[in-house]
Amino acid sequence: MSHNSFGHLFRFTTWGESHGPALGCVVDGTPPGIALTETDIQTWLDKRKPGQSRFVTQRREPDQVEILSGVFEGKTTGTPISLLIRNEDQRSKDYGKIKDQFRPGHADYTYWAKYGMRDYRGGGRSSARETAARVAAGGVARLVLEHILGKDVAIRGALVQIGNREIDRNNWDWSQTQQNPFWCPDAAMAAQWEGYLDEVRKAGSSIGAIVEVVASGIPAGLGAPIYGKLDADLASAMMSINAVKGVEIGAGFAAAALSGEENADEMRMAHGSAGANAAKDGKVEFLSNKAGGILGGISSGQDVVVRFAVKPTSSILTPRKSIDIEGHEVDVSTTGRHDPCVGIRAVPVGEAMMAIVLADHLLRHRAQCGFTN
Amino acid sequence: MSHNSFGHLFRFTTWGESHGPALGCVVDGTPPGIALTETDIQTWLDKRKPGQSRFVTQRREPDQVEILSGVFEGKTTGTPISLLIRNEDQRSKDYGKIKDQFRPGHADYTYWAKYGMRDYRGGGRSSARETAARVAAGGVARLVLEHILGKDVAIRGALVQIGNREIDRNNWDWSQTQQNPFWCPDAAMAAQWEGYLDEVRKAGSSIGAIVEVVASGIPAGLGAPIYGKLDADLASAMMSINAVKGVEIGAGFAAAALSGEENADEMRMAHGSAGANAAKDGKVEFLSNKAGGILGGISSGQDVVVRFAVKPTSSILTPRKSIDIEGHEVDVSTTGRHDPCVGIRAVPVGEAMMAIVLADHLLRHRAQCGFTN
Amino acid sequence: MSHNSFGHLFRFTTWGESHGPALGCVVDGTPPGIALTETDIQTWLDKRKPGQSRFVTQRREPDQVEILSGVFEGKTTGTPISLLIRNEDQRSKDYGKIKDQFRPGHADYTYWAKYGMRDYRGGGRSSARETAARVAAGGVARLVLEHILGKDVAIRGALVQIGNREIDRNNWDWSQTQQNPFWCPDAAMAAQWEGYLDEVRKAGSSIGAIVEVVASGIPAGLGAPIYGKLDADLASAMMSINAVKGVEIGAGFAAAALSGEENADEMRMAHGSAGANAAKDGKVEFLSNKAGGILGGISSGQDVVVRFAVKPTSSILTPRKSIDIEGHEVDVSTTGRHDPCVGIRAVPVGEAMMAIVLADHLLRHRAQCGFTN
Amino acid sequence: MSHNSFGHLFRFTTWGESHGPALGCVVDGTPPGIALTETDIQTWLDKRKPGQSRFVTQRREPDQVEILSGVFEGKTTGTPISLLIRNEDQRSKDYGKIKDQFRPGHADYTYWAKYGMRDYRGGGRSSARETAARVAAGGVARLVLEHILGKDVAIRGALVQIGNREIDRNNWDWSQTQQNPFWCPDAAMAAQWEGYLDEVRKAGSSIGAIVEVVASGIPAGLGAPIYGKLDADLASAMMSINAVKGVEIGAGFAAAALSGEENADEMRMAHGSAGANAAKDGKVEFLSNKAGGILGGISSGQDVVVRFAVKPTSSILTPRKSIDIEGHEVDVSTTGRHDPCVGIRAVPVGEAMMAIVLADHLLRHRAQCGFTN
Repeated sequence: MSHNSFGHLFRFTTWGESHGPALGCVVDGTPPGIALTETDIQTWLDKRKPGQSRFVTQRREPDQVEILSGVFEGKTTGTPISLLIRNEDQRSKDYGKIKDQFRPGHADYTYWAKYGMRDYRGGGRSSARETAARVAAGGVARLVLEHILGKDVAIRGALVQIGNREIDRNNWDWSQTQQNPFWCPDAAMAAQWEGYLDEVRKAGSSIGAIVEVVASGIPAGLGAPIYGKLDADLASAMMSINAVKGVEIGAGFAAAALSGEENADEMRMAHGSAGANAAKDGKVEFLSNKAGGILGGISSGQDVVVRFAVKPTSSILTPRKSIDIEGHEVDVSTTGRHDPCVGIRAVPVGEAMMAIVLADHLLRHRAQCGFTN
Repeated sequence: MSHNSFGHLFRFTTWGESHGPALGCVVDGTPPGIALTETDIQTWLDKRKPGQSRFVTQRREPDQVEILSGVFEGKTTGTPISLLIRNEDQRSKDYGKIKDQFRPGHADYTYWAKYGMRDYRGGGRSSARETAARVAAGGVARLVLEHILGKDVAIRGALVQIGNREIDRNNWDWSQTQQNPFWCPDAAMAAQWEGYLDEVRKAGSSIGAIVEVVASGIPAGLGAPIYGKLDADLASAMMSINAVKGVEIGAGFAAAALSGEENADEMRMAHGSAGANAAKDGKVEFLSNKAGGILGGISSGQDVVVRFAVKPTSSILTPRKSIDIEGHEVDVSTTGRHDPCVGIRAVPVGEAMMAIVLADHLLRHRAQCGFTN
Repeated sequence: MSHNSFGHLFRFTTWGESHGPALGCVVDGTPPGIALTETDIQTWLDKRKPGQSRFVTQRREPDQVEILSGVFEGKTTGTPISLLIRNEDQRSKDYGKIKDQFRPGHADYTYWAKYGMRDYRGGGRSSARETAARVAAGGVARLVLEHILGKDVAIRGALVQIGNREIDRNNWDWSQTQQNPFWCPDAAMAAQWEGYLDEVRKAGSSIGAIVEVVASGIPAGLGAPIYGKLDADLASAMMSINAVKGVEIGAGFAAAALSGEENADEMRMAHGSAGANAAKDGKVEFLSNKAGGILGGISSGQDVVVRFAVKPTSSILTPRKSIDIEGHEVDVSTTGRHDPCVGIRAVPVGEAMMAIVLADHLLRHRAQCGFTN
Repeated sequence: MSHNSFGHLFRFTTWGESHGPALGCVVDGTPPGIALTETDIQTWLDKRKPGQSRFVTQRREPDQVEILSGVFEGKTTGTPISLLIRNEDQRSKDYGKIKDQFRPGHADYTYWAKYGMRDYRGGGRSSARETAARVAAGGVARLVLEHILGKDVAIRGALVQIGNREIDRNNWDWSQTQQNPFWCPDAAMAAQWEGYLDEVRKAGSSIGAIVEVVASGIPAGLGAPIYGKLDADLASAMMSINAVKGVEIGAGFAAAALSGEENADEMRMAHGSAGANAAKDGKVEFLSNKAGGILGGISSGQDVVVRFAVKPTSSILTPRKSIDIEGHEVDVSTTGRHDPCVGIRAVPVGEAMMAIVLADHLLRHRAQCGFTN
């Protein structure tokens, strides 16, 4: 058991604080013989790194990854891969009152209650900087999926709601997610969000969001009863991301209002598929995907669809009532750099966790059932 | 790693199929010296057992638990507790076409895709009968919590939505949950549900629901960064329950629409509390509970609040399009006993999983931080 | 983490006390589609069961195994296999002083020191009866090995020393192990042991022994660096058997006295092999097996050879100095049925643990490296 | 499950190759509030580091440890501690034929058989350099033991045999282990070993050894039935050290030749103890320690005594028969720096593993039984 590790056969352990010298992770269980360079990982880290738009924290971190072990002559050896990312902009400053006060809605209080102490510099271990290590591990996980399943696997995330402003799903265009600073698949809504988030930012406030992550090209059979369910592991994976308060699969909470008839994803055998889809002929085809690609905890071969809600950050300008470590009542407000909507940077993190969970379950399935592609 | 085990220090492993001779679990990690009889467990099993109203499956199972190990002279010894429940009403019948057809929206297809075979009798391992073993383990978990934390711990569940009919939270009365067949805390809504569910039942249809589970009397400090977060484990626990498609903590998905100001649970030191609450004076007091009692993955001392969505069962009378194991297209409908709303029986299961997660985290906290009450 | 589980991908959990109603185990991770009946398991249990000669305990237990789950239409389904063995000869008796006294050299004292209580009936959980569950799980593990590796896999155990009487390895004949009550591969030594053990038995004394277990037909590549070494897991597996005080692989402790030249197992390519061995031509051949088939924690393709030392039981007739639970000094002697040499019945248990470790590592290897035979 | 992690509640994960840029480990589960500096760890690393005498490898490594996380203001925070050690003397050289040839008795062949490739530079992951990370983690484990148990805990190792030259136990003097380059507690034997090992070294040969590690001041109650036995974990821990072929507890293999009467460690209540031992009065006292401080897998309060056999290194000057990766038959000899007796440097590694296993079990015991000192 380790509180700082995730996964079973594809498993990684992260370490590091917001203002320590570095952070990193150790990735274990990778099959041997996979081509892996720092660039393969850097690509994904660059999507997550701070300071890329005015809508995310202005902390400047290059987030350069170094591979310290587990790769020889450009290929994985099957031994643990140690990844290191140095902290560069950890700003030595006077923490003043902050070190003794608890931000309402923040882990400040609970870390202190649990451990009797805390690293108050930038949130210490509770900082979202830890998610850089996840994104790095996710880069390796993607290669494991491709190594075994081929190039058709795609894992993509999108921001689908900020505050009470939801996207129009009729406008969904994956290519748009690369065109705006929000990973928004709806160009019209992205434009609206820009103005809205500028207001939030200028007010020193923050706002929540909803992220959706979709995995395509995943075969049926990943996951397992009962406590090894693919959706149970995805729920744990996404809920472990900073500020996440809810996770749903497929229809999710909306399934509560559905009848059995509406919720059933009917099945047929594909036939007469044209062009690129011809290869699907003679295979199972679902007529809808309320299940989000998971039935009984096992993948069905459809897209795996996960959504999670991210709360607004607690670092805001408006003073809030709180206490300090000696029990004095105080008012707390946060000045300096902050994230008006942490949901934005949660998108590549959600993608990484999806890749990690699927890589783990792919190896688990191969162990028990001998999967070969 | 075990797909059929849950928890780390308070850990249980379940086994058994819907139509096998028996099902059960092995509970490991229980502290020694806790008074435990079969009655302590039976109390909770009786809440979950089928056939108690016309709104749940009519399968008749006494669900009598037998303790086979781990208890000596009425007390736990610290060794594994083996619990056995015999299946009595597993109805030997001709499964006819059912054995070769996949119910849309059911694990039938994915078990077959994964394992190349499946126990089709009553769903085999994918049946909700497995949850009896969870409820039994949950009975032990409650005693562990009381043993260490005292009698103030309470874990209670309620059904808060069926279809699109939500309770009115102003009417919330825990005692009502013991007065109607739905565990509904709102007497007025319970009356409405009765008529509504009769219609669903008579139509051979089914409907989804939302369950809420609340744990009171939990101290601050349970849970751990990063992948050992209390909420991540609760998400996994609830998502592992049959038919669950979404899990949220505190404000949950609604947090996406909140500003940082709205979401912050402000803190004060309690004073001037009267009567029964006088003991709270001089302690931390939160002015709201958007966080659902968990910050940074660690309990804050407030009520821990979890909600989960249960989809409608796929066993319905109306024919749905599907295929069989040979790839023939067929129409599937389910006759015989069924659950119009499986969300009802998920309430005691959700309570059990909450107790199990908390007991596990209490022992984990005690290991690292030396908790003593 | 579970104190009562062993293995990772092929994993089993045991439960039960010496004088409880039953004992058993849950075996998880078995590949689907393996033919499995109670007879497949009973065969091995019959080798371990008590009362088969005058040299082992006279407790009479049929040790009949029941499969309660995980098998459908004669084949494993991939879900957990629950195995149950009832206790029949647990002799209700007056435990008198025994319940409050500690046998020197027995777990009586340490269980009491740890848990503040103990099930004193027949040793409770510390009884060697628990090993029946291991042997049952081992029966499943053997089928997993055969399922993936084919019928050439053989796991065989032998008793090679009782007291200071060692076998002559020049007389080694595996078929002899089935001809005497000691699993002795040296017929001449078996005859000597018979007279010697009769003396020990009549004196109400006991004596230690050494067991050797050999696995043939195991491919190179099982095991993993660093803490997943095959030999590290075998060491843990064997040391977990009741009364075992030492474990060694290949040359073992004798390697301490060897030079690098003597210890090196030289390698050649096999050629000119005649008859049944012709298939080995063109494959790697080792000229000795000091390593016991394991290098760097990974199997080399040679026989895997493990040896373990079993201490004499502490249940003896001669009074020994001890104390009771209140700290009074007492003399303890044990009357009634006992095992003059528990090493004898440890042979099938050692075989079972070897099978379990290898089955686990085979699945682990398949997960990471995609082994197909 | 992780092949490169050890422990459950006190758990560490190591990474790094012999000739990579660095190696290190992540230590998780440490209680908060323990004073920890790099010096606390360096002390132990300095005992293990190469090049300290002519009897160990001449590789020159300062083995300076850096703490990258988990410590704030000089104290552990309860979050993961990342420890980094740079490789400095990894000598870029032409590996020539070595890269394609397998040293007999070395992991060269099995790594290649398992992974289809290997990092041949200095043995890659199979190099004993990995043990530096263990020693670093062991330094933390010692502080955990002291933090909870107080300063009376002592974990000390000694070399008790080289080749067939055993120490005389009557000469045992712990202080001597700090006076000679062998950690030998017998000054007379240390003098003999010096001449003997010079011969071995000059011949380019190598020789095996036996190490003994003793833990004092350990309370009764650590460990657990059945697969969580303290001795089973110690066996796994020691067997995971490079080149170890056997492990024994207390009397170990010698117990096979003992009678029940000889093997029983009799018990009395201490009384009349004088001077420093007066505190023992009224406590349990054992009259011998055949059990090595462990009964039924649980510590008895006596010294915990473990012994392990280390084989001679396979890197020797005399040519040995082998093959290369293409199946050609070759003769292999190793020139350059080597360890004539790797058992010497295994002493601090064995101490570290003892500390780690005990720290882990101490936390496990505290979780279940609520240990407070």
